[in-house]
Amino acid sequence: MTAVEIDGDRLLADLEELSAIGRCGRGVHRVAYSPDDVRAREWVAGRMRDAGLEPVIDGVGNVLGRAPGARAVLAGSHVDSVPRGGRLDGALGVVAALEAARALGGGVDVVSFADEEGTFTGTLGSRAFCGELPEAERARLVAADGRRFDEALAGTGWAGRPLVRLDPSRHVAFVELHIEQGPVLEAGPERLGVVTGIVGIRRLRVTFRGRADHAGTTPTALRRDAGAAALRYGTAFLDAIARHGGPDTVCNVGAIRLEPGAGNIVPERAELLVEFRDLSAERLAALDEVVAGLAAPIARDARVEEEVEQVIHQDGVAMDRGVIEALERGARACGAPARRMPSGAGHDAMIVGRHIPAGMLFAPSIGGRSHSEEEDTAPEDLVLAARALATAIAELAPA
Amino acid sequence: MTAVEIDGDRLLADLEELSAIGRCGRGVHRVAYSPDDVRAREWVAGRMRDAGLEPVIDGVGNVLGRAPGARAVLAGSHVDSVPRGGRLDGALGVVAALEAARALGGGVDVVSFADEEGTFTGTLGSRAFCGELPEAERARLVAADGRRFDEALAGTGWAGRPLVRLDPSRHVAFVELHIEQGPVLEAGPERLGVVTGIVGIRRLRVTFRGRADHAGTTPTALRRDAGAAALRYGTAFLDAIARHGGPDTVCNVGAIRLEPGAGNIVPERAELLVEFRDLSAERLAALDEVVAGLAAPIARDARVEEEVEQVIHQDGVAMDRGVIEALERGARACGAPARRMPSGAGHDAMIVGRHIPAGMLFAPSIGGRSHSEEEDTAPEDLVLAARALATAIAELAPA
Repeated sequence: MTAVEIDGDRLLADLEELSAIGRCGRGVHRVAYSPDDVRAREWVAGRMRDAGLEPVIDGVGNVLGRAPGARAVLAGSHVDSVPRGGRLDGALGVVAALEAARALGGGVDVVSFADEEGTFTGTLGSRAFCGELPEAERARLVAADGRRFDEALAGTGWAGRPLVRLDPSRHVAFVELHIEQGPVLEAGPERLGVVTGIVGIRRLRVTFRGRADHAGTTPTALRRDAGAAALRYGTAFLDAIARHGGPDTVCNVGAIRLEPGAGNIVPERAELLVEFRDLSAERLAALDEVVAGLAAPIARDARVEEEVEQVIHQDGVAMDRGVIEALERGARACGAPARRMPSGAGHDAMIVGRHIPAGMLFAPSIGGRSHSEEEDTAPEDLVLAARALATAIAELAPA
Repeated sequence: MTAVEIDGDRLLADLEELSAIGRCGRGVHRVAYSPDDVRAREWVAGRMRDAGLEPVIDGVGNVLGRAPGARAVLAGSHVDSVPRGGRLDGALGVVAALEAARALGGGVDVVSFADEEGTFTGTLGSRAFCGELPEAERARLVAADGRRFDEALAGTGWAGRPLVRLDPSRHVAFVELHIEQGPVLEAGPERLGVVTGIVGIRRLRVTFRGRADHAGTTPTALRRDAGAAALRYGTAFLDAIARHGGPDTVCNVGAIRLEPGAGNIVPERAELLVEFRDLSAERLAALDEVVAGLAAPIARDARVEEEVEQVIHQDGVAMDRGVIEALERGARACGAPARRMPSGAGHDAMIVGRHIPAGMLFAPSIGGRSHSEEEDTAPEDLVLAARALATAIAELAPA
């Protein structure tokens, strides 16, 4: 297998030009449906046209550039960002797909999905593209700042346009190049990662309710201490995941709030936000059982009431074995054998992968940083990753 | 020993009249130096005059009613309250002292100390009365709302008056009746408590600093998780106090804050407010050593930095054995043997007890409630406690 030659300078120049739209320090601020997100999508459509593709911006802001012919590999990612985010998250996958389309001269449809970052809902565009976002649900979407989806869309000029849709009879596979957003590849020795699957997530809000008492005058045995219950729950949660999780399981206690929150008052109410992630649905189910058993005995011992609310309950999505192997061969052909690894964050490939064979390639993130202007990747790694992507696409492309 | 007869109806009527000043729901709002606090102090001074005492309101708002003669037992408490507090906290001790003075007809000085609740600083009045509040420190006092002590005092009309002072050649002892503010007496069988001492307090602010990372993409081994360190510290703190503390040691983790506080971000910074209390200085010193060893190994394991800041470091004050025994005999004479118990909250007797023999009597708090309008005590318990106080004062009074 021979590596596909791409124009690395053109790739880096495209990234630079795109990063000027909504520039914010060293990063970008291109929140979905903002004027800069609209400008970025129009820029992408223009670049598609220059590459010989036929671009369409649809009724939710998805940009699809179709190649001539009846069948194609679908490649891309997104160009919206989190508030004050990095210049590569999403953008790299779109620009690298464009470069592959140009290098291969056909057989590649390029896509830039809308609102991957979830201003209204996570992976909004790929869900709509795959028929997973019913119109009734779309109509109810509201951003954290209270803005309704319809209002936001009205500002773009795209409202009412028909949706572009995944076409399994046309799209033989989907590939997405993305930055890792973690520190694994940077630690080496591999410079590229091939994603085995996108992990499932469980996020729980755990609340304990006790009684506020004077912390000096109330003997320990007479307290109903919601704060102590929260501490014991959080520690038991970390220990349980460490003990029962697999080598790739990760977990986090991201927030704790004690009320009323004074040094001399026994907490009346305590709330924790906890989550765990793993690719394996079996492991997640086993951990569900372990975690389900944690709160009640702790609450009983502390004489408090507990409530456990599921915030996210989502299984992982395995990537397609054929696409994984094509990406591995692409990386090897470029002289950079790839590491197989799960993706701990969600991506559009997670949605598309439920419908057609899909795979993802990871480029290293310096310091593991992302979702901030510190996000970066060495230029030679950007070019290497785009070349490996193009090489894999060449193999996957219909004859 | 015979119980002193008091007028229970007059006692309850006084409490009712006083509770009308600054009434707030079923409680009172008489924050130090507010117009209602001023009115309450003037009411106390009037009642002192009616009881044959010579009242003085001094330059910080202390109200002292002197009995005829060269020597006297000093009795009282305070009439300021926390914001939206109860009607008995402090007020009971002042009104019961007045009733004792009336019942005994001499040998009792009654005092109502200023700002016990710490609008400017805790036990401000008794500290000034005992010479423990230097004028330079007083001048620097500022309330939580930014108001300066001098400004607050200017509104009372008392600024510039000389201070009344504790006089060890006159005051043979200090006794303070107070509500328990805890649930111990209510659980029975004793209806009254005699305070062995006022506990010392250690309060610490413990901060861990790590690094914010994506909780999905960053393997556990590569994290610097300040939140996990805080959970392990809080749990270890509770366990260490339970293991090394004595039967009366209490502790509390009253507040925890994780930053940035999102479900999918590993906490970068975590702060806990922890405290422990005990009467014994030796036990507190031993616990200081145990607690001092907790943070560093936890921080090291989590690869985060720790900082431990002392917020309160205050030893307990033992009550006088002779006064304790006089109060016990007083309670027994009223048919209500008292329970010996430490006070977990601070009181004016803690300050005065450093200078002359002092003791405290506790009346039960319904549901252990205080510092809220729910604070209450059964009328028969109020009368019983005031009678036991008067009986003890009769024994302590100079011949």
